[in-house]
Amino acid sequence: MGYLENVSYEDITIGQTAAYSKTVTERDIQLFAIVSGDANPVHLDEAYASGTPFEGRIAHGMITGALVSAAIATTLPGPGSVYRSQSLRFRAPVRIGDTVTVRLEVSDKNDRSHLVTLDCKAYNQDDKLVASGSADVIAAPGRIRVEAPILPEVSLD
Amino acid sequence: MGYLENVSYEDITIGQTAAYSKTVTERDIQLFAIVSGDANPVHLDEAYASGTPFEGRIAHGMITGALVSAAIATTLPGPGSVYRSQSLRFRAPVRIGDTVTVRLEVSDKNDRSHLVTLDCKAYNQDDKLVASGSADVIAAPGRIRVEAPILPEVSLD
Repeated sequence: MGYLENVSYEDITIGQTAAYSKTVTERDIQLFAIVSGDANPVHLDEAYASGTPFEGRIAHGMITGALVSAAIATTLPGPGSVYRSQSLRFRAPVRIGDTVTVRLEVSDKNDRSHLVTLDCKAYNQDDKLVASGSADVIAAPGRIRVEAPILPEVSLD
Repeated sequence: MGYLENVSYEDITIGQTAAYSKTVTERDIQLFAIVSGDANPVHLDEAYASGTPFEGRIAHGMITGALVSAAIATTLPGPGSVYRSQSLRFRAPVRIGDTVTVRLEVSDKNDRSHLVTLDCKAYNQDDKLVASGSADVIAAPGRIRVEAPILPEVSLD
C-alpha cells in the first residue's frame, strides 16, 4: 500500500464520495474466526452450511463491518480520523470469493466538533447491496501522510 | 471450543443476559489489519502511535465489533441466528493485552418475526465501557447443537 493520506476536515465536502474494495477469501474467514472467537460452522464448514437456509458457507457479517471501517480509515477521511460510531444493517450474505465494494458518501459535517457523518453502503460484485448504514467520525485537520506498515505474511496450518 | 449451543427463540426472555470475553493480542491486530486491509500505523506502529493523541497503539475499533458479533453468534442466541443489524458507539480505546467483555441483554422480542433486540456493551478489564450499542438478530426456533470446527494454527512471518 505504501502511504496513506487523509482528506482533512477542511477539504471534506458534503456529497463527497470514496470507494474501497476487497475480495473476501477463505483465509479471511478463518482469520476473522480466530480474531473474534466465532468458529460457527456456517462460516467454516461447507457440509454443515449447505444444510442451513444459507445453502452454503457465508462470511461473518462483521467482516463487512471490518471492510466499512477500513474504507473510512484508509480513504475518507483516512488516517488521523477517530471512529465514533457505526450502524450497519446486513442485507444479503457475502460468500467466499465475493468482492465487496464499500461506497462512502459524506452526508453531514460539523465545523465545531469536526464530526463527519458518512453514509456507508457495501455491494458485492453483482452490485447487490449486502450492507448499509451510517458512521460518525472525527476528521483530523490538516494533511496527514503516513507510511503504512508492511503486514506480516500469514500461514495457516 | 467443542460444541456451540443456541438459546432457542422460545426460551429467550426479556432481560436475559450473556457475557463473552476475549483478550486482544498483538496478533489479533495484525490479523484484523490483514482481513480488513486497514494497516493504519496507529494500530501497528508504536513509534508512530505514541505521537498521536492516543499516546500509543490502539486496536481497530471494529475488533470490538467483531467481539460483539462473536458474543451474539456463540452465546445469545448462538448458532442458527441471523444477524440483521448492529449499532456501535466507540467510547474508549482498546489496547493490546486488554481483555474485552461483551455483555448482552435481551431488550425486546417479536413472536411474529422471531426478531430479538439485544443491548450490547463492551467493557475492558477495568470495567471501563469501551463500546455500546444494539443488535437485531433473528433467533432460530428449537435447540441447535453444533460442533465448532477446529481453527487452523496461524503463524506470522
